Amino acid sequence: MANNFITGDLLKSVNLPQDLRNKISEDQLPQLCDELRDFIVDIVSQKGGHFGASLGVVELTVALHYVFNTPYDKLVWDVGHQAYGHKILTGRRDVFHTNRIYKGISGFPKPSESEYDAFAVGHSSTSISAALGMAVASNYLKEENRQHVAIIGDGSMTAGMAFEGLNHGGVENTNLLVILNDNCMAIDPNVGALKEYLTDITTSHTYNKVKDEVWNLLGSISKFGPNAQAIVQKIENGIKSTLLKQSNLFESLNFRYFGPVDGHDVNYLAKVLADLKDIPGPKILHCITEKGKGYQPAEAGDTTKWHAPGLFNKDTGEIIKITPKNPEPPKFQDVFGHTIVELAEKNDKIVGVTPAMPSGCSLNIMMKAMPDRAFDVGIAEQHAVTFSAGMAAQGLVPFCNIYSSFMQRAYDQVIHDVALQKLQVVFCLDRGGVVGADGPTHHGAYDLAYFRCIPNMIVSAPLNEEELRNLMYTAQVENNGPFSIRYPRGNGSMIEWKTPFKKIKIGTGQRLKNGEDIAILSIGAIGEEAKKAIKELEKEGLSVAHYDMRFIKPIDELLLHEVFAKFNKVVTVEDGCIMGGLGSAVLEFMADNNYSATVKRLGIPDQFIEHGTQQELYNECFYDVAAIKETVKSLVQKQTNKALA
Amino acid sequence: MANNFITGDLLKSVNLPQDLRNKISEDQLPQLCDELRDFIVDIVSQKGGHFGASLGVVELTVALHYVFNTPYDKLVWDVGHQAYGHKILTGRRDVFHTNRIYKGISGFPKPSESEYDAFAVGHSSTSISAALGMAVASNYLKEENRQHVAIIGDGSMTAGMAFEGLNHGGVENTNLLVILNDNCMAIDPNVGALKEYLTDITTSHTYNKVKDEVWNLLGSISKFGPNAQAIVQKIENGIKSTLLKQSNLFESLNFRYFGPVDGHDVNYLAKVLADLKDIPGPKILHCITEKGKGYQPAEAGDTTKWHAPGLFNKDTGEIIKITPKNPEPPKFQDVFGHTIVELAEKNDKIVGVTPAMPSGCSLNIMMKAMPDRAFDVGIAEQHAVTFSAGMAAQGLVPFCNIYSSFMQRAYDQVIHDVALQKLQVVFCLDRGGVVGADGPTHHGAYDLAYFRCIPNMIVSAPLNEEELRNLMYTAQVENNGPFSIRYPRGNGSMIEWKTPFKKIKIGTGQRLKNGEDIAILSIGAIGEEAKKAIKELEKEGLSVAHYDMRFIKPIDELLLHEVFAKFNKVVTVEDGCIMGGLGSAVLEFMADNNYSATVKRLGIPDQFIEHGTQQELYNECFYDVAAIKETVKSLVQKQTNKALA
Repeated sequence: MANNFITGDLLKSVNLPQDLRNKISEDQLPQLCDELRDFIVDIVSQKGGHFGASLGVVELTVALHYVFNTPYDKLVWDVGHQAYGHKILTGRRDVFHTNRIYKGISGFPKPSESEYDAFAVGHSSTSISAALGMAVASNYLKEENRQHVAIIGDGSMTAGMAFEGLNHGGVENTNLLVILNDNCMAIDPNVGALKEYLTDITTSHTYNKVKDEVWNLLGSISKFGPNAQAIVQKIENGIKSTLLKQSNLFESLNFRYFGPVDGHDVNYLAKVLADLKDIPGPKILHCITEKGKGYQPAEAGDTTKWHAPGLFNKDTGEIIKITPKNPEPPKFQDVFGHTIVELAEKNDKIVGVTPAMPSGCSLNIMMKAMPDRAFDVGIAEQHAVTFSAGMAAQGLVPFCNIYSSFMQRAYDQVIHDVALQKLQVVFCLDRGGVVGADGPTHHGAYDLAYFRCIPNMIVSAPLNEEELRNLMYTAQVENNGPFSIRYPRGNGSMIEWKTPFKKIKIGTGQRLKNGEDIAILSIGAIGEEAKKAIKELEKEGLSVAHYDMRFIKPIDELLLHEVFAKFNKVVTVEDGCIMGGLGSAVLEFMADNNYSATVKRLGIPDQFIEHGTQQELYNECFYDVAAIKETVKSLVQKQTNKALA
Repeated sequence: MANNFITGDLLKSVNLPQDLRNKISEDQLPQLCDELRDFIVDIVSQKGGHFGASLGVVELTVALHYVFNTPYDKLVWDVGHQAYGHKILTGRRDVFHTNRIYKGISGFPKPSESEYDAFAVGHSSTSISAALGMAVASNYLKEENRQHVAIIGDGSMTAGMAFEGLNHGGVENTNLLVILNDNCMAIDPNVGALKEYLTDITTSHTYNKVKDEVWNLLGSISKFGPNAQAIVQKIENGIKSTLLKQSNLFESLNFRYFGPVDGHDVNYLAKVLADLKDIPGPKILHCITEKGKGYQPAEAGDTTKWHAPGLFNKDTGEIIKITPKNPEPPKFQDVFGHTIVELAEKNDKIVGVTPAMPSGCSLNIMMKAMPDRAFDVGIAEQHAVTFSAGMAAQGLVPFCNIYSSFMQRAYDQVIHDVALQKLQVVFCLDRGGVVGADGPTHHGAYDLAYFRCIPNMIVSAPLNEEELRNLMYTAQVENNGPFSIRYPRGNGSMIEWKTPFKKIKIGTGQRLKNGEDIAILSIGAIGEEAKKAIKELEKEGLSVAHYDMRFIKPIDELLLHEVFAKFNKVVTVEDGCIMGGLGSAVLEFMADNNYSATVKRLGIPDQFIEHGTQQELYNECFYDVAAIKETVKSLVQKQTNKALA
């Protein structure tokens, strides 16, 4: 499949990494990097996608495939959105323009897509553990010359999981190379002590320079006579064994540390990597890179903005904004961001917590307005939850905002540190339901099911902006223990969303519409699809009742009694996995109360859903407007058929 | 409530920490420690419980309450089984003999039990995050003189969560003191690079000694004339800022490091702690302690054994073993331990992984038999799962054994790193269901629900030892993706358990017994309770069918068609949370297949269950023999009543 994107001559000649190794000479490497960078800029500016991260590792990507024998040697790209260059060099140049598009290639490494993708990634900080597993397997299988490389950003390094991998990796004698891609950024600027430490290493007095100087010192003072010699002798071993060996955090963990090196000097990188190949055991190479490197507007501009900028004019660097003619409903995340500030102005117990997603979840609004009350704790979901629990134990009311799929990282902490003690932590789960182009690693498919089974939890999902605001209001007005509010990626449905706060009675839904033939029960913003379907069905002469359940736990039993007293055909709709979610809760209620009715459950089926727009995925999962209509009609049809029979 | 346990005079006078601070002089502290230790030995030897950990921190416990203003100052005891001394000194001396007994006090800190228990703990590595949350709250609330102390073992320090807490703690200017209780042990000997590092610090050339020597060197060489002076001048800043400041892993993370100190010198500890109170900002005190300290048999013996030794003769140190007259069925964990070795002898792809539970899950059998194929990765569940995934990606078949409640820590890794790629990792979930004396933090209540909603997962639970063996056999014989096998704490039901392997068709249950009046569907070993109930019910003239479902996913639809074609009264029984578990799966099947029947679901209700024996808890949760009988009878009764009406 040909395409019209700017493809330099060298890049054209590289279909697979072996072409790179066989056809490209060392002195052509910089040019290949330029061509690769241009190609990425050209496509991403027209097609969208992640941007800064992949531009920052162009030289690293080229050097790695130049030096290592991929796919025999294993490259594990942490998080994976830095792997665009890798994808382009490994057989996917000509389909790269389908990146993140429905039925196109994935925006993340995916073994089912290419043998060069050693491991599926999307969440951060898994690469060291995965690469170590491969390296240990290689040892055991006696494939001793196989190399295993984890490429991980400094932001991802703050997650505990990376530390767990290092702690184990340090005592396994394997061919494991960890490349620390240090650009001082996750999506937002990296935070925490580790970041300061890395900055310390890389500025002014570099680690290696000091190391050299100490050694030189030891050499030079030994010239000052027997006294000095004795002193040197006496402490040399001590320094060697403790200070120098362990003077670096990574060496404390038994990794040989190399660097820092310039991550944009492709020839030097190739040389260093070739040297490292021959050094056995766990080792770390500290590369300094720049997100957005080589594209001037991204280099000069706001790095967070250029993480995934959307479409842009690549010549001017201007982001292409399609200004809608009419005002649009806001993003749910912004409703969260503005509302928490509004609430916090009145309730001084409220604080905000995000694990490295201030711009993604819009807590940055509070961080700006109330810097002492909003905390970005780095990529550290486990800590974010228990840190919130600690604050709640002292009487504060933390709003802990974590994407639904990342909350999977803190499941134990929600159970063990929050719910067990019935602490008032408000969990705001952004990106609940299918998320679109990020695909299966990022869909928030399971939260309703995995939260519902936890005692003491209140689990809710708003229909729209107003309900989100009112649920947030309700969660802080009195202490009812842990309170979860989940909402989807993207925009809501209300233009005039800033309505006055109203307390919602916990565990109550609402009847949105009366009807006679059948009832639809929905939870969350997907209820808007149900509303559209009902409107169309009514035009076709069907009378459909609609209930917005609002809470999956506690579920509104009064409302369900009303439903099952009246209807014997019910459809449940949720933007979440069908197993264990709203539909199951409704079936449990029926069993416990001896109701029988035909219940059809719509939601995410029991499979991993690929990427696409949210609408494409609603359709694929069979809970879009058309699917709801079809389901209702087939149920009512059956009834009619029975009546006729 | 009085008791007859050995209570020394000083200990008698300490009902609360204020007594300790007001009535006990510094030179009496060692004696109080002795009395506290004797009291713990006396009670635990007769009543059981955790042992080594609490003995090891007797001096630390006394010193902390002596120096800090508890409960205003906050002590967070990591894991919590080290907190016996703390409980005894904080108003619970006279009820301490009810420790871990049904309706007695908890074996772990529990805020609802005492205001001195600042935070509920049971799982490891949460203390830094929780204490930091409290410290940040104190700052915000302007309670600036409040102190916050996390006491954490070196084993718990290997968990990523602890690192996340340190990384954030290092950049918050709070009164946070982390006490690293370094005894080189979790339950089993601690593993990993961090442990080696800590050992390095504490042996021969201690960190502080070297630090001093370097400073002395800098001083002394400056006497050697202008040349030396110049050199010193030149590098002094470099050394200060990089080498010395960061020469310690904890100082890399911006914590001021103190130690190592002798954790059994109570007077010195009190002095150091008093000094540390005045130093602002995050700091760490490295204490060297000995598990089982002060009780000779534990000091000299196997520390793993003395972690929770059961009852023992405190004079001889002899563990009291009640040898049953007849042979007993084995523990499930031992069936796992022996069976994995048996399977691995034939299948050289099999490897074993445990996060710090080799003796608890009996992987130590494989570690002894096949040391190169069994991995203890430390307290690091997240890493354990993704490390297993990495090995599986290379074609190995890892059996990753994690307690059900600890698997909550690796939920994202199961979804994102294993299930998404459909890798053949066999999850053996020990301690599924209620676990007994460890209580709510350790009950394996949620795994059936939280695993069932993950695509690609096979989720099973064996009825007995033979089924456990056959499920393990089935999981490795061919690649069907992730395969989970969960079984309870304690003994099974078969004396002759080592039966020849048989492959079980995935997703099939079995009819254990025919019947006419009603059907019981059970999953897992709780089916044995159902069997007993059925036997008794049959004597009363009821005819009850029994189905062992074996797989909750995929569920045996063929078998369920058989059930619902024949029965309109069904009871489901599971040793797991009732929301989202087997019962819900059965209801989903019914809805999807238009069956109607009266289904009564027995399982763990929607609340946290306290501690007690497993039988006491089956009873409390209403799924013991009596509850099953009662449920069946009331259902059949209703039918009879209806027939009569």
